[in-house]
Amino acid sequence: MASREIEGLTQALARLPGLGPRSARRAVLHLMKKREGALEPLLAALQSVAANLSTCSTCGNLDTRDPCAICADPRRDDKSLCVVEEVADLWALDRSRLFPGRYHVLGGRLSALEGIRPEDLGIDRLVARVAAGGIDEVVLAMNATLEGQTTAHYLAERLDKFPIRLTQLAHGLPVGGELDYLDEGTLAQALRARRPVG
Amino acid sequence: MASREIEGLTQALARLPGLGPRSARRAVLHLMKKREGALEPLLAALQSVAANLSTCSTCGNLDTRDPCAICADPRRDDKSLCVVEEVADLWALDRSRLFPGRYHVLGGRLSALEGIRPEDLGIDRLVARVAAGGIDEVVLAMNATLEGQTTAHYLAERLDKFPIRLTQLAHGLPVGGELDYLDEGTLAQALRARRPVG
Repeated sequence: MASREIEGLTQALARLPGLGPRSARRAVLHLMKKREGALEPLLAALQSVAANLSTCSTCGNLDTRDPCAICADPRRDDKSLCVVEEVADLWALDRSRLFPGRYHVLGGRLSALEGIRPEDLGIDRLVARVAAGGIDEVVLAMNATLEGQTTAHYLAERLDKFPIRLTQLAHGLPVGGELDYLDEGTLAQALRARRPVG
Repeated sequence: MASREIEGLTQALARLPGLGPRSARRAVLHLMKKREGALEPLLAALQSVAANLSTCSTCGNLDTRDPCAICADPRRDDKSLCVVEEVADLWALDRSRLFPGRYHVLGGRLSALEGIRPEDLGIDRLVARVAAGGIDEVVLAMNATLEGQTTAHYLAERLDKFPIRLTQLAHGLPVGGELDYLDEGTLAQALRARRPVG
């Protein structure tokens, strides 16, 4: 019923995470009905990202410039480096605005199952950054999954020889977590890492 | 943290129906990570829709050509005309592929509350189409809301003088509807419009 162009746009939108065929159709209708308020701004925004998109050659972040906004920011603390698996993790952490330092994106995690080995990740670049000096602390901010923790363990071994403080994110109860609903693994971690009160 | 361009794209996506700030961010990351597989195709699809978007001067449908694909299709039955409130309704009905005729989009519904009067809708154009002749049946496919039904009633009066069959969509139980969960209005309609078995 709809023309080839509209079908094409619907399919392109339906492939985005969080959108299916139904919501993509609704989005296309919205865009077509609000040409100046929605379609044109989205088009311009996409064009400007597509024209400038690049991977930061320092940290592996995705941005519209290289070095990325974080690496280029002079107010950031050069002495702290936070290592994450993916760009999405960097964005999530940075939204909390609690980490003042710089980041390093590995681009994945070690996985025997998927055949991902150390040389497939940005680990050599990480070691080189640390070896270059000037870094006091490296925070290993891997996911709390088996593969994330394996990766953290491997990184800890590789970075052991440098005079840095090596830390990792705390594991335990998430905010709002109710004991009754949490898995045993989380409870075991929370108990093992219990801290004195006050 | 993210650059102005990325923020802009996130905001443009977040304004689409069905997407919020979180899912827009996930979508932007997806687009940036899959430049060739997702970003470029979406950009091209948007560009081609934006370049060709038009409102069909015959029926009011939105398409990338005028007359729209439905009005231009010679296999469609010129004798049946289905009147809908919005383009979204046309799309929904046409997906069922059960109506072989043409459509007419009013662009809204009569509403005392919102101050929408007959002259604000494509009603004169509808009357002109019917007056031009060649139409045997007009299906009033308004929403089963108070305003939709008011609009249908008004249209029925306006079209009464023409030698056409005037019909409306059946009201009753939706497929999968359980009596226990349906509202009294629907049950009343279903009972009032009951039909002989077999």
